[in-house]
Amino acid sequence: MSGLLSPVSAGTPVEDLVRDEAWLQAMLDAEAALARAQARLGTVPAQAAAVITRAAQAPLFDPRALALAARRTANPVVGLVAALTARVAEVDRPAAEYVHRGSTSQDILDTAAMLVTARAVRATRTALAATADALFAHAAEHRDTPIAGRTLALQAVPTTFGLKAAGWRALVLDADERLRRLLDGGLPVSLGGAAGTLAGYLAYADGAPASYVDDLAAAFADETGLARPGLPWHALRTPIADAGAALAFTTGALGKFAVDVLTLSRTEIGEVAEAAGGSSSAMPQKRNPVLATLVRTAALQVPPLATALSQALLSEDERAAGGWHAEWLLLREALRLTGGAAHTAAQLAAGLRPQPRRMLDNLARTGGHVVAERLAAVLAPLLGKAEARRVLDEATAAGRPLADALAEHPRVKDLLTPDELARLCDPAAYLGAAPHLVDAALRRRPIL
Amino acid sequence: MSGLLSPVSAGTPVEDLVRDEAWLQAMLDAEAALARAQARLGTVPAQAAAVITRAAQAPLFDPRALALAARRTANPVVGLVAALTARVAEVDRPAAEYVHRGSTSQDILDTAAMLVTARAVRATRTALAATADALFAHAAEHRDTPIAGRTLALQAVPTTFGLKAAGWRALVLDADERLRRLLDGGLPVSLGGAAGTLAGYLAYADGAPASYVDDLAAAFADETGLARPGLPWHALRTPIADAGAALAFTTGALGKFAVDVLTLSRTEIGEVAEAAGGSSSAMPQKRNPVLATLVRTAALQVPPLATALSQALLSEDERAAGGWHAEWLLLREALRLTGGAAHTAAQLAAGLRPQPRRMLDNLARTGGHVVAERLAAVLAPLLGKAEARRVLDEATAAGRPLADALAEHPRVKDLLTPDELARLCDPAAYLGAAPHLVDAALRRRPIL
Amino acid sequence: MSGLLSPVSAGTPVEDLVRDEAWLQAMLDAEAALARAQARLGTVPAQAAAVITRAAQAPLFDPRALALAARRTANPVVGLVAALTARVAEVDRPAAEYVHRGSTSQDILDTAAMLVTARAVRATRTALAATADALFAHAAEHRDTPIAGRTLALQAVPTTFGLKAAGWRALVLDADERLRRLLDGGLPVSLGGAAGTLAGYLAYADGAPASYVDDLAAAFADETGLARPGLPWHALRTPIADAGAALAFTTGALGKFAVDVLTLSRTEIGEVAEAAGGSSSAMPQKRNPVLATLVRTAALQVPPLATALSQALLSEDERAAGGWHAEWLLLREALRLTGGAAHTAAQLAAGLRPQPRRMLDNLARTGGHVVAERLAAVLAPLLGKAEARRVLDEATAAGRPLADALAEHPRVKDLLTPDELARLCDPAAYLGAAPHLVDAALRRRPIL
Amino acid sequence: MSGLLSPVSAGTPVEDLVRDEAWLQAMLDAEAALARAQARLGTVPAQAAAVITRAAQAPLFDPRALALAARRTANPVVGLVAALTARVAEVDRPAAEYVHRGSTSQDILDTAAMLVTARAVRATRTALAATADALFAHAAEHRDTPIAGRTLALQAVPTTFGLKAAGWRALVLDADERLRRLLDGGLPVSLGGAAGTLAGYLAYADGAPASYVDDLAAAFADETGLARPGLPWHALRTPIADAGAALAFTTGALGKFAVDVLTLSRTEIGEVAEAAGGSSSAMPQKRNPVLATLVRTAALQVPPLATALSQALLSEDERAAGGWHAEWLLLREALRLTGGAAHTAAQLAAGLRPQPRRMLDNLARTGGHVVAERLAAVLAPLLGKAEARRVLDEATAAGRPLADALAEHPRVKDLLTPDELARLCDPAAYLGAAPHLVDAALRRRPIL
Repeated sequence: MSGLLSPVSAGTPVEDLVRDEAWLQAMLDAEAALARAQARLGTVPAQAAAVITRAAQAPLFDPRALALAARRTANPVVGLVAALTARVAEVDRPAAEYVHRGSTSQDILDTAAMLVTARAVRATRTALAATADALFAHAAEHRDTPIAGRTLALQAVPTTFGLKAAGWRALVLDADERLRRLLDGGLPVSLGGAAGTLAGYLAYADGAPASYVDDLAAAFADETGLARPGLPWHALRTPIADAGAALAFTTGALGKFAVDVLTLSRTEIGEVAEAAGGSSSAMPQKRNPVLATLVRTAALQVPPLATALSQALLSEDERAAGGWHAEWLLLREALRLTGGAAHTAAQLAAGLRPQPRRMLDNLARTGGHVVAERLAAVLAPLLGKAEARRVLDEATAAGRPLADALAEHPRVKDLLTPDELARLCDPAAYLGAAPHLVDAALRRRPIL
Repeated sequence: MSGLLSPVSAGTPVEDLVRDEAWLQAMLDAEAALARAQARLGTVPAQAAAVITRAAQAPLFDPRALALAARRTANPVVGLVAALTARVAEVDRPAAEYVHRGSTSQDILDTAAMLVTARAVRATRTALAATADALFAHAAEHRDTPIAGRTLALQAVPTTFGLKAAGWRALVLDADERLRRLLDGGLPVSLGGAAGTLAGYLAYADGAPASYVDDLAAAFADETGLARPGLPWHALRTPIADAGAALAFTTGALGKFAVDVLTLSRTEIGEVAEAAGGSSSAMPQKRNPVLATLVRTAALQVPPLATALSQALLSEDERAAGGWHAEWLLLREALRLTGGAAHTAAQLAAGLRPQPRRMLDNLARTGGHVVAERLAAVLAPLLGKAEARRVLDEATAAGRPLADALAEHPRVKDLLTPDELARLCDPAAYLGAAPHLVDAALRRRPIL
Repeated sequence: MSGLLSPVSAGTPVEDLVRDEAWLQAMLDAEAALARAQARLGTVPAQAAAVITRAAQAPLFDPRALALAARRTANPVVGLVAALTARVAEVDRPAAEYVHRGSTSQDILDTAAMLVTARAVRATRTALAATADALFAHAAEHRDTPIAGRTLALQAVPTTFGLKAAGWRALVLDADERLRRLLDGGLPVSLGGAAGTLAGYLAYADGAPASYVDDLAAAFADETGLARPGLPWHALRTPIADAGAALAFTTGALGKFAVDVLTLSRTEIGEVAEAAGGSSSAMPQKRNPVLATLVRTAALQVPPLATALSQALLSEDERAAGGWHAEWLLLREALRLTGGAAHTAAQLAAGLRPQPRRMLDNLARTGGHVVAERLAAVLAPLLGKAEARRVLDEATAAGRPLADALAEHPRVKDLLTPDELARLCDPAAYLGAAPHLVDAALRRRPIL
Repeated sequence: MSGLLSPVSAGTPVEDLVRDEAWLQAMLDAEAALARAQARLGTVPAQAAAVITRAAQAPLFDPRALALAARRTANPVVGLVAALTARVAEVDRPAAEYVHRGSTSQDILDTAAMLVTARAVRATRTALAATADALFAHAAEHRDTPIAGRTLALQAVPTTFGLKAAGWRALVLDADERLRRLLDGGLPVSLGGAAGTLAGYLAYADGAPASYVDDLAAAFADETGLARPGLPWHALRTPIADAGAALAFTTGALGKFAVDVLTLSRTEIGEVAEAAGGSSSAMPQKRNPVLATLVRTAALQVPPLATALSQALLSEDERAAGGWHAEWLLLREALRLTGGAAHTAAQLAAGLRPQPRRMLDNLARTGGHVVAERLAAVLAPLLGKAEARRVLDEATAAGRPLADALAEHPRVKDLLTPDELARLCDPAAYLGAAPHLVDAALRRRPIL
């Protein structure tokens, strides 16, 4: 997997955290943690747990062989258990008896999935924090910088670039909170045994009372750093659906930032530029908004993946035939794309170069029509709302600068002087509460 | 809209809460609340706000005419404002000046969407509570009732019906928590004015300071019963994405219950029946699992709708051209299907008739093979794990009752007596921690 | 259903074709056609078939009552058969024996779904033809009109507006071909009886040979105007998946046209305008690209609906519990949105006003950088590819008009005169094969 | 990429056809074919084309380096062109001038995507043919083997296993036809140059007329074995949307086969078994339906991927910023999963072991209720439809064997003898037209 088809994540920190070898290591981590948890409770010898832990190193195993073997069992754990058992037996034959003791494939693979998810999400949050910091700086610096607010593709009324940046940051913080919520209690170990009753674990615990399973879950959670589950979740796929939703949200939030940068980067708009635009194989002059392009790719890909992850809830029986197995690849891709998008967004935000001059120039292009709303508010008390609207419809239809058109309009010329009109029609003087909103938005801090 | 194509929601409480007339009323509620909020702050006369409130009644307006008019503006609010203004003017001409003052279509429609969402979600939570209660009773009653645990379509090891019911309930509670989280702070009024700066509201507030917009937001939230937004969210679609995710989760959670009921209802399994099975147009004998069928329909439909709602985050500019407008229909359908599914699930749970006799009969069909795992745990310490597995592979391959096959097996016959084997091979005696898990699960209570 | 939340389809021709009453009529059409088909084969009296046909009128039935009754059976046909039987019995008691004879709910509802689909798709194709015609005219008129070609949001090299329009038209024709393919053989009657063996039909045919079912299918197809199925398709959902894919394609194709219009309509670009821009509730000056906005809404909504329709293939048994029932609402919405989008696109295309002057002005904004590729091609043979690229990187980095920068560049000034450079840097003179491609594209004709 | 998380495709033929190295080779194939096409037309020296072709071998390039470089340009072609140019220059410096001449990244990558798609789809069709053949044999052999037809999870009326197999085969043939249609004309080379006008190609063709581009497209198509496009399709994404739809259809069609096998494999049903059931890490007795499980995984994953591919149509400008780049990974995964599913389905079909004895036993479980429809048809002419239904409702409600219940029923006992009733209630004697339908279905042959 070279990343050739996924430049948004190629070489970013998340990549190593989700590749096949990382999943393999996470499965081994789960096996080792399980043995240690049982050792804590006295149902596995401490020595065996130590040997198993030392053997549980991904480089000692062949992921390709495990992948091929998985076609006979539908999951890679059966083969991994055999290989791990063999390796442990080479070192300490009696210890091999204790590998995967009382366990089932899904306990291992689900726990591994949560470990991988936790690691990838933490890396993603780091990148989101950097993104939010850079956007904070843009918002603060451009708190009062006028830019056209645009709705349905057209200039609507002025706003400030700071408010745009504050909005992007607000979404990044929203995403971060959803990822934090996922990490704080949402990512549990899987511990159910063959069909969710933990009977196998109990059978090997020599007459232990049923409450043994609580202790085992607590110890397993402690050894892995994951949370304790409410119930065995082999067929109760809350963590998968939650992860999908949080990842789709995150790429969507970053995607909003990206699509705005793409729009503002347009040749005819030119209100922002990327620090180092990308080159083209054909066109020497182009400085493409490459980072925004990459971020958008993730925002287009992850929501459909999340659909399938949310459909994982529809899991029949105590383990779904196919439903479970369909989660792994899509979860991995969603984690990878989201982590890559967050890293890329941090680069984009850090290097983004706003162009206040172009923002003003563009605002000037409408000849003041962009503040027609303001004139409506001024004229309505004087003429009545309906008549004010009629006058403005006439004045804006003419295509002339609004102040000029109104200065000559029979219903207006005696009410407002040309100077007053010129002042009212200055886009930079009609920013509403934008700077105030920026201040309020920047008081919000990420929750660590 | 008769509901002809959507029996899962037809006639359920949510239906009235989301129909076109309900949306229309919610838009009018938003207009009236806005006028009252402005009146509180002294920027609209109290009398005008009162007149506007009285005029804001859906039956006074023609939704079809508004729908047709919306083709000229892409949203129904422009037409509604005109019609509301006209109606207010009939009663009190000066008051008409204050309709929609300083506002924009999206403030009204988004606020209305949140009102509709809040109402529908509350009704859904009521139905989820009833579902959870009924499942609680099943779980408690059948805490110890043996039933086959099934994985990859086959009997795996025994579990209890109570644990199955407790698992369904756990998902229902998970769904309810996600809906509660949505209601508690997640559903804000929309208040941004033309492009998110609230400039129009300020322009009519006669030199009020920018902090006026905070007071206005607070008053508007108070008048509607919704939350205050962090920032104007015309193009920051967190509430929409969150709603989509929570609704998809809810139908998925209910769908798990439904697919299990469908499986357990199969002619050859027969472990549950619906209180009143549905009839068939062709087959007199059939008592179809109709309610489970209906619930499953929602679980198949809502996740794709939620995909689109999560993609709403990818909203360019200060208002997306089409992105915003694409939310309404899908949000409505998602609310309707989810509310209908919850109501239907409550009926299903209340009437569900477990068949413990059939559960036992089915468990007996494997001749004890269903507890082979237990025998592995018993034999492993005696024979070693690998040899125990080999013996059991032989014993189960024969197709005979497991106790008999083992009683004659040369490696086993001297280790365990036929009586011991018979006891070990009794499925009802290998429930693991299932009853204990039920107890723990039922200690979890819904959060109100 | 007023259409309040779906302005893209409100009031368009497709709306009446897919509403609940239309589905109800289609179900009645199916019942009547089935009776007539059986009458042709002598297994139902001709008189009975005539009475049934006369009674099969939607206004005689109450869709709301049928919707509510459907909660007991999961589909509305059981109730409809009872109501139709009662109505026929009032007129001609013996004829009532022949209503729905040997049939099953799914035969009726699936056949109705195909009738509705056929009707809606035909209306959609009419609108696509109008769209294609209008785009043909734009393409022909603006075959040579220069406009910036844009990639990754930036001006790349010039193209012509005619080629853009020809591209939009090509997609419309592609969509039309996929809908035509759907109509030509893809929309079959459903005829399977209780579980796909047609046993019920045979049982009432008094010892007819099995080949009777072929004759019945042929007669049923003939009476409905639909195609004969290969096999009963209760659980072989090819027609549903195909319809979903074709509808998603169509809205996607129209969506491409819409997003381009939105971009070209931007205040700063202004290269096209809609005939009658929409108004805003807040901003008097705005002439919103309303039609393009509406078309885009459909393109955002239908693909997720189509996902679910394609998942209908995953239909267990001889009739899926929930899989089947989940199709109806989503199919209807997909048909409605697609038909509405096609109608709206036809209006958009007919009224679209290209602005050649603005296109040229925008092309001029880059100072000739937009034809850097051309200069690369001219200089490469003179300087070598790498050196030419280096020179152009320098020349375009300066931000000056390209012709000027090159005229003074030491590696170029002796190779090309300022006049030659000026000619080479004229965007309007570097249209490549655009006009030629327009000619070729316009030779393609819709297949009727 | 070991395939660890995707056992449905691990080690199947498609895997090698879609991995990063295969994409890299396909890009190089496109570059070489382009040079040879230009050489045919005299715009590139034949010698240069030959050198380029010899250099265009994937093992000579480092996909990881290209992937990392792609972060600067958003696609891997820019880096590849540089690397290919360098390699050619080492061998033949003048030839390096002709690498990628007049071209653009998207021409190369899109053409490569079509080459990969064509190769993967051909392998998939081979596997579908094997699947269809094996299902043909099952259908023919079990043309008359009774099995319960099931609807809404319950036994409905009898059918034959042959008809089930014929239905699975029909879907496989449907899928194959959609893939064939994709290959026959649907997979074009991409040839547009920087922004779809082919201006760069023309610029290097020294005054060639515009029709040169037709010759170039023809030669390029010929050299690659792909089709000629109607128009440059950089932003007209018909081939991508079509591929997505055909792949989603294919996995859905195979998924139907899989979910039926899973149901029929259930412990309590046992009507089919896989040739070699998979083993479990915990439960010695289990012979899991592993192949059906794997096939289902693909059917759950591909439709959401196809959603995103269909949304690729919504591609703004002459090349979408992000829309294009989001296609690659999802297309690859869809191809891989579909090819893996087809290969797995062929294994599943070849090894499937129907259990006619269990089918009969299960049919017998209802005591003849499964043919209540038949009795309705017999009794309706004697008692009237309504009364017949009433009698059967009573008879089936009792839970006794239907023949017995009817033999004692006051309305029936004088009409039909116990022998007649026993014969009428024999499920094996009520197969309807099932065998006849099998014959008809098997006459359909795959189109090569």
